Amino acid sequence: MNAVARTFSTEGDYKVADISLADWGRKELDIAEHEMPGLMSIRKQYAATTPLKGVRVTGSLHMTIQTAVLIETLKDIGADVRWASCNIFSTQDHAAAAIAATGTPVFAWKGETLEEYWDCTLDALTFTLADGTLTGPELVVDDGGDVTLLIHKGYELEQGDDSWVNSASGSHEEQVIKNLLKRVASERPGYWTRVVKDWKGVSEETTTGVHRLYQLAEKGQLLVPAINVNDSVTKSKFDNLYGCRESLADGLKRALDVMLAGKVAVVCGYGDVGKGSAASLRAYGARVIVTEIDPICALQAAMEGFEVTTVEDTLGRADIYVTTTGNKDIITLAHMQAMKDQAIVCNIGHFDNEIQVDALYASGAVKTNIKPQVDKFTFANGNSIFLLAEGRLVNLGCATGHPSFVMSNSFSNQTLAQIDLWANKDAYEAKVYILPKKLDEEVARLHLEKIGVKLTRLTTEQADYLGVSTDGPYKPEHYRY
Amino acid sequence: MNAVARTFSTEGDYKVADISLADWGRKELDIAEHEMPGLMSIRKQYAATTPLKGVRVTGSLHMTIQTAVLIETLKDIGADVRWASCNIFSTQDHAAAAIAATGTPVFAWKGETLEEYWDCTLDALTFTLADGTLTGPELVVDDGGDVTLLIHKGYELEQGDDSWVNSASGSHEEQVIKNLLKRVASERPGYWTRVVKDWKGVSEETTTGVHRLYQLAEKGQLLVPAINVNDSVTKSKFDNLYGCRESLADGLKRALDVMLAGKVAVVCGYGDVGKGSAASLRAYGARVIVTEIDPICALQAAMEGFEVTTVEDTLGRADIYVTTTGNKDIITLAHMQAMKDQAIVCNIGHFDNEIQVDALYASGAVKTNIKPQVDKFTFANGNSIFLLAEGRLVNLGCATGHPSFVMSNSFSNQTLAQIDLWANKDAYEAKVYILPKKLDEEVARLHLEKIGVKLTRLTTEQADYLGVSTDGPYKPEHYRY
Amino acid sequence: MNAVARTFSTEGDYKVADISLADWGRKELDIAEHEMPGLMSIRKQYAATTPLKGVRVTGSLHMTIQTAVLIETLKDIGADVRWASCNIFSTQDHAAAAIAATGTPVFAWKGETLEEYWDCTLDALTFTLADGTLTGPELVVDDGGDVTLLIHKGYELEQGDDSWVNSASGSHEEQVIKNLLKRVASERPGYWTRVVKDWKGVSEETTTGVHRLYQLAEKGQLLVPAINVNDSVTKSKFDNLYGCRESLADGLKRALDVMLAGKVAVVCGYGDVGKGSAASLRAYGARVIVTEIDPICALQAAMEGFEVTTVEDTLGRADIYVTTTGNKDIITLAHMQAMKDQAIVCNIGHFDNEIQVDALYASGAVKTNIKPQVDKFTFANGNSIFLLAEGRLVNLGCATGHPSFVMSNSFSNQTLAQIDLWANKDAYEAKVYILPKKLDEEVARLHLEKIGVKLTRLTTEQADYLGVSTDGPYKPEHYRY
Amino acid sequence: MNAVARTFSTEGDYKVADISLADWGRKELDIAEHEMPGLMSIRKQYAATTPLKGVRVTGSLHMTIQTAVLIETLKDIGADVRWASCNIFSTQDHAAAAIAATGTPVFAWKGETLEEYWDCTLDALTFTLADGTLTGPELVVDDGGDVTLLIHKGYELEQGDDSWVNSASGSHEEQVIKNLLKRVASERPGYWTRVVKDWKGVSEETTTGVHRLYQLAEKGQLLVPAINVNDSVTKSKFDNLYGCRESLADGLKRALDVMLAGKVAVVCGYGDVGKGSAASLRAYGARVIVTEIDPICALQAAMEGFEVTTVEDTLGRADIYVTTTGNKDIITLAHMQAMKDQAIVCNIGHFDNEIQVDALYASGAVKTNIKPQVDKFTFANGNSIFLLAEGRLVNLGCATGHPSFVMSNSFSNQTLAQIDLWANKDAYEAKVYILPKKLDEEVARLHLEKIGVKLTRLTTEQADYLGVSTDGPYKPEHYRY
Repeated sequence: MNAVARTFSTEGDYKVADISLADWGRKELDIAEHEMPGLMSIRKQYAATTPLKGVRVTGSLHMTIQTAVLIETLKDIGADVRWASCNIFSTQDHAAAAIAATGTPVFAWKGETLEEYWDCTLDALTFTLADGTLTGPELVVDDGGDVTLLIHKGYELEQGDDSWVNSASGSHEEQVIKNLLKRVASERPGYWTRVVKDWKGVSEETTTGVHRLYQLAEKGQLLVPAINVNDSVTKSKFDNLYGCRESLADGLKRALDVMLAGKVAVVCGYGDVGKGSAASLRAYGARVIVTEIDPICALQAAMEGFEVTTVEDTLGRADIYVTTTGNKDIITLAHMQAMKDQAIVCNIGHFDNEIQVDALYASGAVKTNIKPQVDKFTFANGNSIFLLAEGRLVNLGCATGHPSFVMSNSFSNQTLAQIDLWANKDAYEAKVYILPKKLDEEVARLHLEKIGVKLTRLTTEQADYLGVSTDGPYKPEHYRY
Repeated sequence: MNAVARTFSTEGDYKVADISLADWGRKELDIAEHEMPGLMSIRKQYAATTPLKGVRVTGSLHMTIQTAVLIETLKDIGADVRWASCNIFSTQDHAAAAIAATGTPVFAWKGETLEEYWDCTLDALTFTLADGTLTGPELVVDDGGDVTLLIHKGYELEQGDDSWVNSASGSHEEQVIKNLLKRVASERPGYWTRVVKDWKGVSEETTTGVHRLYQLAEKGQLLVPAINVNDSVTKSKFDNLYGCRESLADGLKRALDVMLAGKVAVVCGYGDVGKGSAASLRAYGARVIVTEIDPICALQAAMEGFEVTTVEDTLGRADIYVTTTGNKDIITLAHMQAMKDQAIVCNIGHFDNEIQVDALYASGAVKTNIKPQVDKFTFANGNSIFLLAEGRLVNLGCATGHPSFVMSNSFSNQTLAQIDLWANKDAYEAKVYILPKKLDEEVARLHLEKIGVKLTRLTTEQADYLGVSTDGPYKPEHYRY
Repeated sequence: MNAVARTFSTEGDYKVADISLADWGRKELDIAEHEMPGLMSIRKQYAATTPLKGVRVTGSLHMTIQTAVLIETLKDIGADVRWASCNIFSTQDHAAAAIAATGTPVFAWKGETLEEYWDCTLDALTFTLADGTLTGPELVVDDGGDVTLLIHKGYELEQGDDSWVNSASGSHEEQVIKNLLKRVASERPGYWTRVVKDWKGVSEETTTGVHRLYQLAEKGQLLVPAINVNDSVTKSKFDNLYGCRESLADGLKRALDVMLAGKVAVVCGYGDVGKGSAASLRAYGARVIVTEIDPICALQAAMEGFEVTTVEDTLGRADIYVTTTGNKDIITLAHMQAMKDQAIVCNIGHFDNEIQVDALYASGAVKTNIKPQVDKFTFANGNSIFLLAEGRLVNLGCATGHPSFVMSNSFSNQTLAQIDLWANKDAYEAKVYILPKKLDEEVARLHLEKIGVKLTRLTTEQADYLGVSTDGPYKPEHYRY
Repeated sequence: MNAVARTFSTEGDYKVADISLADWGRKELDIAEHEMPGLMSIRKQYAATTPLKGVRVTGSLHMTIQTAVLIETLKDIGADVRWASCNIFSTQDHAAAAIAATGTPVFAWKGETLEEYWDCTLDALTFTLADGTLTGPELVVDDGGDVTLLIHKGYELEQGDDSWVNSASGSHEEQVIKNLLKRVASERPGYWTRVVKDWKGVSEETTTGVHRLYQLAEKGQLLVPAINVNDSVTKSKFDNLYGCRESLADGLKRALDVMLAGKVAVVCGYGDVGKGSAASLRAYGARVIVTEIDPICALQAAMEGFEVTTVEDTLGRADIYVTTTGNKDIITLAHMQAMKDQAIVCNIGHFDNEIQVDALYASGAVKTNIKPQVDKFTFANGNSIFLLAEGRLVNLGCATGHPSFVMSNSFSNQTLAQIDLWANKDAYEAKVYILPKKLDEEVARLHLEKIGVKLTRLTTEQADYLGVSTDGPYKPEHYRY
């Protein structure tokens, strides 16, 4: 459990923690395939046509067992894939090893530094043509938008706008990115322009990344067509909700083995992630308090019997804090200093800035590492708090993320989005698209048999009465599920 | 409990069961006002400006205590109101009496015949000008679309198209409507044309009614602007879901006092109404089976741990059947004949055609009335089933519908829609509109204080980070809650 | 809904509200029989032997549809039955009528005065021998111990101890009983001595009544053998828990149609009744706070995620108060005066003294009757509270009590206890007995088939390994289920 | 993840996996102390009097972090402690190291062979007097009864009855014990007689161990007074129920990261462990089926909405099987062969014989080790199942057992039992005792403050009304909670 001098396995075109874990990873991949019927069905359906034949695809997405099944699905339908993780703690090293062992370039390990993280992202971006020219992906699978950010910012610099790379940085990570871009600028002149020339699209997975895409599109700066995978019903209403309902407690348990029954837990935010988190904690017998800024979500929480109040009102009586907002500064340093002794603080939203981690580090609180991803901070008043996964995603940092079955839904959407982007590369504009409801329903359908669901089928008379087709789609676009 | 010779109170411009119930109704209205903070707040806000001053409003909506608070809110902001119920069983007679006693014309009682029902609708539609001319409403509050239907069909006939009124009818009710239109045609020539001339808009409450409006709009036949109130989040995600979670069991209990724990209950449909119904039955310890045609909703049901299969698969083992679909022929006569002895069949969706009630009546099954709205049908094989509220809405037929607090959300949307329609009567086209998200959030906000919710407020930095205003709206249009 | 001049049906040896309700009652009895498999099975099993043949049985137990099935079961196995209710509000008049119509003497109606109540109890006690001599029951079915109290106190008086009947009374009801005993003393000299001579036993249903029996037994004053039916697992862990889980919300809904979601509800006491009540309210989306005196029950409540605090701590923030304790002065007048406006106060424990009802009446608060069993009290500060069923059992006063299926468990225990008492009338001493676990298991077994349960059967090897018989009993006596 | 050549840390009077883990263990011990208020309070209360001063105590109980806090509590109140685990997989190596590092002899590591396990048990039993004489404990803390078994069987052999050690063994483990006893007989003649001479009592933790004690007592073979800690309410109704509600899912998740939502899970047995297991799985969205032999428990399961049927009926449709019975042969080889492909089989009851593990090993199924404690068995028909923790306790084998807070309840009972046994060593007979209810309530009370519970206090009038003391105990002995 002590820090170990780090060694890597880098014999081929990959960089992973330990290639000897490949066998174990493969066994777990075999198991996961049984839990991911959507991806397996897509493999079968497109085995003959290989719609991504020879297409260069870069993925930046938590390098877990489930992602490994996604990678192999993309390869099965023809893609030429390179991969990095999108979070410094989320890689499962045996999964990365199993992928590396098959010859797919993967650059990811659990516990990267920020410098290593962005280097890995660049490695995953960098394809080498037969003539040795360095180029980039034709399609990107993104989660949080880091690849998209890097290409856009690199391209901006090559277009002559160096204002951003030379501006003051709001965080250490921001500076790391700027340093990287400057290095690329000197080492690979014209590289980003070449990359952008071939780039045909990106499919994005998360609320936060999608939000960035819409902002780029609104400003007219988006370089390629994008598919918002997050807002497929079978993504946001499943991965975000049911995924977190399973993986939040898993992260808490593996981190601290804490009894949840009888505890007071504060869930900040009652979107899909917050709904899943609150449901899980309550089911364990915790008393859950919700914080919200949106009156509609607040009213939903109240209708489910949750107390809804501010973080300030909970200080001194709550034992566990979970941020789920996608916003920043939700748990401030002042909050942490006023918490009950031994309170647990973690984030399952998106970035680590939901918690004021930097301020905590700078506060003079004494840090004691309990075990990887579990730190105790002791304040001057003698109280301590536990910070999990350094404020990054607790389910991926302290456990293994969402289980395979729910990820099969998300990744089926990702795969269909990739196929769609390539098929329509000449038709689509540089805008943000959503997958048609028909495909959304198809993704759901692919997962029903595995869990024994028997669908009812509309008669023609019933379909006519509703004014829909017997084969769907069954609902108007604005339907909320 | 026997049929009573029916007498009515009709001393003024109203028709109710018993005007002497007005005092009791008023006491319950007083209680309900405390539970309907949204409506009370709107009264206060618009007390001075009375935005509906003198506007003729016809309402067709379950004449309950909650609706009485809506009616008095519309009157408080200036409207000239006439009212009918939108369901033959849903009137609470003391609520109707209380409204009638204040001089507001209301035409509704519990247990109308279909002929009486449509006559009441016509009465609620018929305003008399100072000069004695009969005219219609300027605005309509609709639930299920019956007033809208009547005006459209009446107008169609006066335009010279008598194909529909002379066509064969698929149901007894259809024929009742046609007869009424023919009578009006002879008694009030040109009436519907006059009505349409002044009619400025309709706000509609239910999934089914909204669906009809979209169909009219698509065909270019919609005569006025319409506001789809159903798809306000604070309507469909509250009334449909949390309302049914409270009122389904209430209907079952008042009808049959049945133990729900240990029973197998089949919920047909897993939309918002189905979700609320299934949650309620499970909470009582029933084992709930869901039927669905939509793979996404089916997967949601499965993720919540419900068995999902077809009605056919449940016959002989299920004790309770609840339809929630808005579709027809969900429970067929053949289903009912094959059910377990003493199975209970009811509908909380929309129309009574979710269950093949007509076929049941015609089947030769022996009908025994247990008490109002509770009938036993005994089949030739000796088995019986119980049909509640003759297949109409069980929560309104056998209990008192949704509780006040949730209806305050729906009716706040209705009221805001009425104000909006009138304010924009010159701007809006004959299309279907949805209330802006900002108003949706406002409706929620009006209900938070009553239940002690304390909202968190975004800082400017946080709002900028998200790219929203600190005052909302907080979510993109496609957000599903 | 106004007070009606009361008339009764008293044509035969009975006194009920309206004998013409008998047909309706019979229809509901037919339905209930399907839901009470335990009683129906006992009827079948003992049809030939009629173990209570000719035995005089007095019952004092809520005169509901379910009790009617119990009465007819006792009659089927031979008993000569007379019945009263054990609560002034709990009678279902159509049930009483149905029983009266069959010639069984029953003295009960909904809304008795206390004087009427105790007169009914005396009527139910009074059997007339062929020679015209007045005598009493040989067996008593008791719920709350009122018949047992009356006989013991009457006998005490005839034994020459008049200290109690002449003492000051702590409540109006106490004085009513004393007056009755004095009247009997003058009208029927020696009556109670004759009653006691023939009395062979009592089976008692509730926690409170059982508690009284143990107290009598400890003091050596118990006159007959008693069976504690309450502590059969299939009674206290079913009726008290699952019965209340179904009937509390039913009472609240029928009384006030109130939305439970989002409300703060305080459940006083976390025994079986409190557990059922808290579970039900939470399932509706209420936020439940528990009060407890017992640290073990308090810890259980906390493990289920309930806030546990004192009544005082909840004043001003809670909307609903439910007492479940079997103790007195749980909700005091001072509590009620400090409650949030429009708070609802009710009792599902045992006696109305859980709430300081007498003090409320005497407090000067203005009482407004909303409808039967629903009263509003307005205090000087302008706030009001709602008191349901005058502080008596809300599920029986405002709804119809527990559903049939769970009562079939309780009443199967009652019936088996009656059979056992009679069979062992010469063997048993004047002590409190519990039914053997084997019978408890048998009661459960009789209810499994109806709800489709398929039991697993121990192999001989497994039974030997556990050291039990393959036929049970399966658990040690101290097992808590 | 591969098998490693095993090395041990054995520098002192201990045998643990790696003494260098002591620091990490100590950090987790510090955290656990905050979650174990009962034990910490007992330390404080008895710090001065040290009621176990110099008493030799042997513990045989899962060597986890929580147990480490128990061990240090026993030491704090004076005991001379030696410890072994009671399960080959349940040791947390860092906990064992932390204890060993303080000089307390501990013999335990994760993944012992059966031979190693029983040798460890003997080591924990073996105290050396100042003169070098080997002797045994004066008190035993037992979990499952292995120390008690070993002493009784060893003593039986020394008394001249060698029938058991020479009989045929039903399992490999049985033979291991016999071999050990024979070795001790040859190496330490008269040892067990010396041990028994000083042995004053045992406190036992589990249902199974308690059952064995009652059997010994009934046959008159029990050698010392025993306290049944399992049946303290604050043990069986907390550890068994709420402990499993937290740790079952933890074991499943750490073993296989499987999605629980949508799965069909079979819980065999609906005692406290089964109740906790079923509640947890349902909360995750699994559809839970219960199997039971006891009609009362079966009816409880049905009232909670679970399908209750036989294991046979679930084959082919269930994904997860969990045994909770304390009985044997619950999941047979034939069951496993007929299960759905990729079904998961595990045990959280007591011994591994709940599943026919031996038969599985002998069946010819191909075993693939996925990672420690996770094995896949592939049958001839191509289907596989996953067996967790080799059929031993899945929560301890695949995760870290119950969380600290609930174990603080159990271990407070253990500590109070040890104090009680020693205080009454001259008074108690060789029978099985239960701790008085007063202590049970005290244990609960010690845990309330930590989780913010505020108890209500009885007034004297209320206590008199109930006939109890204001300080408790509050319930009759037969109360079931």
